[in-house]
Formats: sequence, C-alpha cells, structure tokens
Amino acid sequence: MHHFDAISAQLAQVRAGHTLPRDLYVSDEAFRFDTQVMLKSVWLYACTVAHVKKPGDWYQFELGRNSVIIVRGRDGAVRAFHNTCTHRGAKICNQPTGSGGRLTCPYHFWSFGLDGKLLAARGMPDDFEKAQNGLRPVAIENLGGLLFVCLSDNPPPIDRARADISAQIALYDLDRMKVADQYDLVDQANWKLVMENNRECYHCESNHPELLNSLDGNGFGKGLPEDNRDGDATQGEAAIEAMRAHWRELGIYRDLVEFPDGWWHRVARINLAPGAVSQTMDGKPACKKLIWPHGDREETSLSVWTQPNSWHHFCCDHVVTFSVMPLAADKTLLRTSWLVHEDAVEGVDYDPAYLSSVWRATNEQDRLLAEYNHAGILSDGYRPGRYSNEEKLVEAFKTFYVDKALEALG
Amino acid sequence: MHHFDAISAQLAQVRAGHTLPRDLYVSDEAFRFDTQVMLKSVWLYACTVAHVKKPGDWYQFELGRNSVIIVRGRDGAVRAFHNTCTHRGAKICNQPTGSGGRLTCPYHFWSFGLDGKLLAARGMPDDFEKAQNGLRPVAIENLGGLLFVCLSDNPPPIDRARADISAQIALYDLDRMKVADQYDLVDQANWKLVMENNRECYHCESNHPELLNSLDGNGFGKGLPEDNRDGDATQGEAAIEAMRAHWRELGIYRDLVEFPDGWWHRVARINLAPGAVSQTMDGKPACKKLIWPHGDREETSLSVWTQPNSWHHFCCDHVVTFSVMPLAADKTLLRTSWLVHEDAVEGVDYDPAYLSSVWRATNEQDRLLAEYNHAGILSDGYRPGRYSNEEKLVEAFKTFYVDKALEALG
Amino acid sequence: MHHFDAISAQLAQVRAGHTLPRDLYVSDEAFRFDTQVMLKSVWLYACTVAHVKKPGDWYQFELGRNSVIIVRGRDGAVRAFHNTCTHRGAKICNQPTGSGGRLTCPYHFWSFGLDGKLLAARGMPDDFEKAQNGLRPVAIENLGGLLFVCLSDNPPPIDRARADISAQIALYDLDRMKVADQYDLVDQANWKLVMENNRECYHCESNHPELLNSLDGNGFGKGLPEDNRDGDATQGEAAIEAMRAHWRELGIYRDLVEFPDGWWHRVARINLAPGAVSQTMDGKPACKKLIWPHGDREETSLSVWTQPNSWHHFCCDHVVTFSVMPLAADKTLLRTSWLVHEDAVEGVDYDPAYLSSVWRATNEQDRLLAEYNHAGILSDGYRPGRYSNEEKLVEAFKTFYVDKALEALG
Repeated sequence: MHHFDAISAQLAQVRAGHTLPRDLYVSDEAFRFDTQVMLKSVWLYACTVAHVKKPGDWYQFELGRNSVIIVRGRDGAVRAFHNTCTHRGAKICNQPTGSGGRLTCPYHFWSFGLDGKLLAARGMPDDFEKAQNGLRPVAIENLGGLLFVCLSDNPPPIDRARADISAQIALYDLDRMKVADQYDLVDQANWKLVMENNRECYHCESNHPELLNSLDGNGFGKGLPEDNRDGDATQGEAAIEAMRAHWRELGIYRDLVEFPDGWWHRVARINLAPGAVSQTMDGKPACKKLIWPHGDREETSLSVWTQPNSWHHFCCDHVVTFSVMPLAADKTLLRTSWLVHEDAVEGVDYDPAYLSSVWRATNEQDRLLAEYNHAGILSDGYRPGRYSNEEKLVEAFKTFYVDKALEALG
Repeated sequence: MHHFDAISAQLAQVRAGHTLPRDLYVSDEAFRFDTQVMLKSVWLYACTVAHVKKPGDWYQFELGRNSVIIVRGRDGAVRAFHNTCTHRGAKICNQPTGSGGRLTCPYHFWSFGLDGKLLAARGMPDDFEKAQNGLRPVAIENLGGLLFVCLSDNPPPIDRARADISAQIALYDLDRMKVADQYDLVDQANWKLVMENNRECYHCESNHPELLNSLDGNGFGKGLPEDNRDGDATQGEAAIEAMRAHWRELGIYRDLVEFPDGWWHRVARINLAPGAVSQTMDGKPACKKLIWPHGDREETSLSVWTQPNSWHHFCCDHVVTFSVMPLAADKTLLRTSWLVHEDAVEGVDYDPAYLSSVWRATNEQDRLLAEYNHAGILSDGYRPGRYSNEEKLVEAFKTFYVDKALEALG
Repeated sequence: MHHFDAISAQLAQVRAGHTLPRDLYVSDEAFRFDTQVMLKSVWLYACTVAHVKKPGDWYQFELGRNSVIIVRGRDGAVRAFHNTCTHRGAKICNQPTGSGGRLTCPYHFWSFGLDGKLLAARGMPDDFEKAQNGLRPVAIENLGGLLFVCLSDNPPPIDRARADISAQIALYDLDRMKVADQYDLVDQANWKLVMENNRECYHCESNHPELLNSLDGNGFGKGLPEDNRDGDATQGEAAIEAMRAHWRELGIYRDLVEFPDGWWHRVARINLAPGAVSQTMDGKPACKKLIWPHGDREETSLSVWTQPNSWHHFCCDHVVTFSVMPLAADKTLLRTSWLVHEDAVEGVDYDPAYLSSVWRATNEQDRLLAEYNHAGILSDGYRPGRYSNEEKLVEAFKTFYVDKALEALG
C-alpha cells in the first residue's frame, strides 16, 4: 500500500528538545500514517467502564476510518468488535452509545450476540456458515476501570500500565460511578498539537483563569508534592513530610509514576490551591455524594496521563476524563466525560453545568491555542523550535510518538 | 495520466457472490477511475424526452467534472453537447434546465445554435473560423423516450436495449408526458452502494413501510408474475394463467427481460398489492388523467432497470424515473422525476406532494441505509461479504461494474 | 519534494493566443505549484502604506499556507516577517490587522519587537540564544505607497517597476491617505481566471452596468487617451492634443507604460465618461475632500495593473486597490480597499457604502463570470480557446505566468 517514505525522511530530522518538522504535524500523509499505522500499533484510551455500565450497553469508539463497538456482555465482561456487518459491511451501531440485547444491523437485520456471534441471517446460500461470520474482535483491556483498545493484531504489552494505574485509582472505584456529563469539542488542529498543549502548563498563566482557581501556583506538570521546593513559601520540608505521613495513614499509594522504563503512563498526585479540594470554580466539591473514601478535607487530586491520547483527573467528588482522536490532518476530536457516584442524583447532588464548567472553559481556551499553533506551523517560515524547561513532558510525548512511529515503520 | 494500478489489483481480488474489496467502494482513486474511465465507457441514463419537451428546452446532465447540455432543436431532434464555451471555456448553461432560441455564453456572449453551430463571436482575429468552433457533441440515444448519453468517442452498441425497452414502454408514450415533480437527494455514500441498495428488496421489510403499501408481499426483484410460487396463497397457477391471458388480450408485451446475452437492461412487470393499481400511499392513482390506455383496473406496474445508473417504474397514472450520479467517493446524487400526462392539470388532476410521497420517503430511508453501508465499509474490519439468495441482482450489478472496469482498463 | 512533472508537460502545450491547458487552471497540483513555487518567485502586491499607517500597525498578508506580518516600526519603516513564533510555531497575529507596541505570541507569551527581535522568552534552557530566535524576515518593497512582498530568498529586481509606478502615482500621496472601506470576496474559481477576467473589458458590456456608468465607451484596456481613434465621434485628434497640452501644464506624467522590456507593470490614464470625474455611480466624487491636487474637473483617472495579482484605480477623490490571492485550486480571495484623504471625515465627507458601491457590484458580477469559467474548464470537452482582439492583456498575463513558471521550474 503506502510506503510513507516522506514520513521516514521527516522522522530522521527530529531533534531532541525541539518540536517536530512541519510535515509531521500538518501533512495529509502524516495523518494517513498516524491513523493507519502508528496509532494502530499502540494502546488507545477509549472510555471508562461507567460508559458501558450494564449488560447490553455499547459505546462507539472511532479512530480515523475505523469504528469499534465496545459492549458489555450478559456475563458482565466488556468486549470490542469492528463495527461493520459481516454481510455487506454496513455500520451496525450508528449512534455514539446505545443499549440492547443484540447487535442488529439496520440494513438487512442480521443480528449478533453481545459476544459477537452471528445469531440470525435470513436466506443465505446453503454453504454459508454462521460460525464463520461473527463480528471481528478488537483487543481491549481494563485498567482499573479505564478501557484501552488496540487495533493491531499483535498488541504491545500492557501489564505494567495496568498494575500502576489500577493500584492508584482503585480507591475511586470506577465501577460504582456513572457518566454525569460528556461533550465533544473539535479542534482545527493536528491531534499531536492538541496533545502537546495538554502536556505543559507553560501556557496556563493568563490563558486559563478558571482552571488556575483550584490549582496551586504551579499548575500541572510542575509542582508535585514530591518536588515542591519552589512552591508556596509556607510549604517547606516539614509540611511535605506531614502530608506524606497523613497519606500513609489513609493507605494511599502516592508515588509519582513517570513513564517508567519506557512505559507510556504517568500518575501523579498534585496539590490544589489552599482551601481547594476539587477542580471546580470555587474549589469545593461539585457533587455532594463523594467518591473519595476519606472525605473532602484533602487538598490534592490524582491525575493520570497516558501516551498517546488521554488524561484523567480524580477528585474527591468526581472524575473527569479526556480522549483525543484525530479526524483529519487539521481536525481533532477532544471528548470530555465527567463521572460522579452512581447514587448521586442530578439536580440534587450535582448540577452537570457547574460540574463541567472549569474544563469546558479550559478546553475552549486550549482549542484556540492549538489552532493558532497549527496555523502557524503551516508557514514556510516555521522551523522546529526549542522546548522550554517547563515543557519536558511535551518532549516525552514527542519522543513516544517518534519511537512508536519508527518501530511501526520497522 | 493516471494508471490505476491499485484499481487493477483490487479488481483481481473480486470474488463471485461477494461484495467488492473495500477500496473499490471508498477510495478517491476508485472515484477518479469511475468518473474518468469506467462510467465514460458505457451508456448512462440522463433524463426523459419530457425533460426537454419543446424546441429550445435544455437539460444539464453532469458526470463528475463533466457537464453535458441536452437540448431539443428546432427540428425536434434531441442533441447533446459539452457545456463549455469554445472561446475561454466558460460553462454556458448554469441552471439545471432552461429554454431559449440559442445557447449563449454568459461571459462574452458568444452564441450557438440549438444544433451547436457557433453563430456569433465578436472581434476575433481574421483567421478565426467559426465553423471550427461549434460546441463539441456528445453521443445521445433515445430509448422509447428515455435518453442515454455516452461520453466515449466510441460508444458501445445500444440497439438491443433500445429494442427491448422501447417495445415494452411504448404503451405509456413518454412523448405525451410532462415532468410533474423532481427532486435531488445527496447520499453520503459511494454511487455503487446506492445502486446495490436499489438492486434488492432483502432490506425492504421494516425499512420501507410506504413502499410496501402498494407492492405485493415480495417487493421488487423477487416476486415476478412469471415465478410467483411463494407469493400470496390465493395466487396459484390458475390465477397466473388468467392474468397472462388478460394481458395477451390487451396486446401487452410482458415477458421478463433480464440482462439478455450480457446486455445491461432488465424489464419486468410486477404484481402490486391486492387492490392496488399504482405505487402510491393508498394504491390508487395519484393522477386522474391516466397514461395507461387500459384503465385503472390492472394490479401490475412495469419496471425498467439499467446498468449502471437508473431505474424507472411505469404505473397507470404516472411514471417515476431515477438517475444516480457520483459526486465524490462518498457522495452521490439521486435525482427522481415524476411524470404525468401532459394534459393533467396540477391541483386538479394531481397533487405533486402526494404523487411523490412514496418515493420521497423511500429514497430517504435508502439514503440512510447506503450511508450506514459506506461508513461501515471504511473499517479495517471490513471483508467482502456473501450476498444472500435474494441479492442476485446486486451480484448482476457488481459483475457489470467489474466487467466494464476490466474492459476499460484494457 | 514535489517535482511537478505534470506541470512541465502542460506548460509545454501552451499555445500563443490561446487559453491555458485545463489542468493548469483546475488541478490541485497546479495549485500547489502556484502557491509553493511560482508565486513565491515573484513580487506580490500586499497592501498600501495606508494599511499600516502608524508605528505598531500590522497587516496580515496570506499566500497559500504562508502568513506574513507587515508591520510599521517605531522608526516609521515598514518590515515583513513570517507570522510564526520561533518557539513552537504558533501564529502570532491572528486577526487581519492590529496594532501594538510588540508582537506577542498568544500561546506562551513570547514577545518580539516591531523589528522582529525576540525580547522575552521565559524559562528557556541556559544555552538558548535570544539573538538567534527573532522573527524570520520576508522581503518587502514600497512602490510609491504600494507594498509588495516576495517570499523567495532571492527576490527578482523591482527597480524599474518602482520608478515607473512611483513617478505616476506620487501626485496622489498615499502616505496621506487612510483606508475608508475594505471587503473580501471569495470566488469559487482559480486565481488565474480571476486575473484573466480583470485583464479585458470584452465581457463588460451587459455584464457591468454600474462600472460602465463612469467609464468612456471603451472600458478598461481598450480606449486609452493615446490611442482613442474609435472612441466618441466628438473626440478627434484636436481634442486629444488639447488634453495632452493641459496635462503638460499640470506637470502630469502620463505616458502609457505597458509591461516595458518584459517588466510586470502597466500604468495608464484612461478616459472617463463625458462629465464623469470619478469611478462612482454618478461620476461625481464620492469624497468631498479631494486627493488630486488639480481639482475635480479632469475627466480621466489613473490605473495601475501589476502581474500577477493586483490592480488599482486612482481618482480625484479616492483610490481603490485590489489584490488577488489563491486559497485553493478553485477558490480565490479578492480583497478590495478604498482609500480617501486622511483628513476626510466619515459621514461628513464620504459615505463608505456609496464610495464602494460600483466595485462591490462589479466584483460580484465578475465573481459569477469567473466561476462559470472555472466550472466549464473542468469539462473533458474543454480545449484551449482563442483570445479575441480585445483580450491582448489577458494574453500578456498568461504569458507572464507561463514564463515565470518555466523559470521557477529551472
């Protein structure tokens, strides 16, 4: 098919500490390469277990021209299938989500079980074998309630990421949560620029007033409890040690996990602003029914970032989770979901508009920045630029992309 | 120019009884091949004689980047020309239809006769020869009132199709009809999927309630009067023989013609539902002024299908005619026209909204199905699937496409 | 990168006195060639000095994927820079125009002086050198107040054009004018067809009633004072000689300059309709405050045309200036600006709607003609056609394009 010679040539020009060569961000060939090769060789975050809560619930995950049905079976297990009928190829699930006892194609009403088996296909030739015509499976893994899929026939290992992420987020128990709000934002920018934007807070000041309300002075990716020496003057060694002791008492696993041994996950507990206990406009919980088992007195939250397409913040009252998927060379889908305790009652315990207000505002601000970034990179005057000291996690993302791209090209 | 190597490779993978390989449906290269090569090598249905009823009437037919003017001359003959001025190439006719004594370019007012001759071109160099600068002709043929064009310099034969179609539809006398309603629907699906959708009624049940009102239990493409053994229990051999005798009395030529000797036309008289005499919501005529010379007591209608882009239904009171033209790899124009007797008076004899209601609803339902089909075929999980026993005419369409594609590639 | 073999092949088919081969007008490859090669090898008109009137004023000029900031410095000099931050490439100026003491990137707030020097970049590695990270300059030249940019590293000479244009338009003193109105029109046509449309008035009659109100019977490009022998019968040799004498008295330099020695500029004083002194609906000045130092009794105006993308009309009361920039193979931006004396007061001395009415109407009419032209050229029936005697300046434009294209291909 495609040989992607130009991609190889551009990858060879990548320099440490610098942004990528132009065409890796903006060319149609890079988009084809990313969606047909690179992104199919890695694990991609799709959604949480709360998105397919009950048997029969399904969720449509899309990568480029591929659509995958993620569905919970009668046995409670979550499975994934290519969303294309084995008869004439029609898309079976044509809504973002749904629920039902079977997966039935709307074209000729072939129907499949929640386990993908072909159950009914009328009027077929005598030598047609139903057993050979079930839905084609896609690899899927559950990491403590976060669902990852891989479109490769030979998915890479996932054990270390599962162990690290599961251990830290277990306390929040995603199985007992529900989706309280969700919305899609389309950025007119390459997906890698949307990701790079997420991987630094060098741009936060002045750009993100709502977000900075509840974060400590260092934002994300800088001021970690473990290494908070240039933070607020009132926080010294003593304060940090007191916090650590407190966590140990609560049995909270809280070490920074940062892309260990070449892995693709980062987990960090971050400080909130003094007095803040959740990433909300006023720092107070946005849902009365808490998910954090230790009350609402803890001025930290937990964040998970994965390469190449997700991040998640766990607060005492809610979880907010983000997935990034390319739609075109210059178009990217950012999907944001807010989860609360399954017993919380909308209008009583939480108001979805208030719950989502910080990140709706922040996402919109970031959309504009990513779009400026993409527009400027199109210029013949663009040259790969130097990352600042506060953009080390951008470099980490870029390096992951380059390494996986080179591996995929073989 | 283009060599279409990938097309050849995909054609070589086609399997009998199965849908086409993915890229023949969805790739941009296949779209270029179809519109620049394959579809230019065959006869395409454009419109009826009723669309260019009077001398000076013209109709714009478009295939990909080509626009063709179909125009009736002062002598009553219908001709076709490339819709591009021989001066600087401007499009001459810029509306779907029109009428006038000349074809005048809006740019510099060069004017051409209805026979294509250049009549006026102001201020040209002395050695400019008007006779050499007439409009360039396109091949056009009249098959009993259905007009077909071919963009090849060497159009394939058309005599057998003309003979068979003309003979059967002569009774309806298209020369005495007028266009009562017309509308365009754009499907977000490849044109071949729009065609495949038309070539089977395996999908009709549950999907097409309005259409099935007036059809017998078998829909199109299955229950033919000639072979109606699994139909309504009240119809046996005796009923069929009685019907045949009745038709013979009326002088109606009614044998099934089904792609004879490799030709590209199918003509069939089909049963309507008991009591129905027209393909309307209630089975009654939608136009009081009939076109069928034998009254409104006959529970059948006549249908014509041609490869690769048309179908037509002839009822006692109206004709409905469909053309399919590709606009992009994933975009297809379906144009539907309803014809009634030229003496019928709108608002008195017929209501265009009611006349067109069955097929407006049905087209919209089919649009959705074709779009689901296209969307699903994009998936990497798609594999060519098996046609059912009720999809033999889909296989016939597919085989025509493949054969003509291979011929065109030489 | 791209080799543009198809472009070379098409250029080899160009015939004198005829329009270009189809694909040079309509193909995506020609668009890439034009915007990435041909148009980057020549001087392009961008705007006037009145568009960046005060220190700190900037104007965004776009060619294809390139954006250039044209900015007036504190020293009054006008400079041009690639509009892409040297940090991560974000577009710095994201509005059509603006003003400020610095050029500050909205992403991470790096800021640059009006001379392009990097002034502030927080938190960079120790070995980062600010002096190496200023904005990248683009060549810019001022021709009597008309600003031209060139995206090549080796811009071609511009001295003769500057001398000829400056001399003739000096009288109007663009430095003392301001932008009174401006609007953008997007034609669904290739930029070369928009240009060809501008280079003849063979299409004017019947198409441009508003424009012809104030022009003499010959329109543009035909009836010049110097060569006006087939004009109004009341104008003979004697009248022309009287006019010449009158001009000499006023010190007006008025010889026709027409692409001398292969240069790319044409300057001509043209006759207005009897009684008309400005290109307005009624031929009277649209601004009370005149810019022409010799009053409002002169029935001529001055026009400047440059290859490949601009034209300008200088009347006694206002200047109207046009730039053409390709957006896609079939999409072109036409930007029109009206300038009046800097001391004129809106609502008192002029009404922008009235001032712009002739060309708003005319541009819209030309848009439609260019779109018909593009649509028709797409046809397989298109063949390069013969230019009329009144289209010699179209041939001049075409020849310029072909010559520069061949030079750029080497």
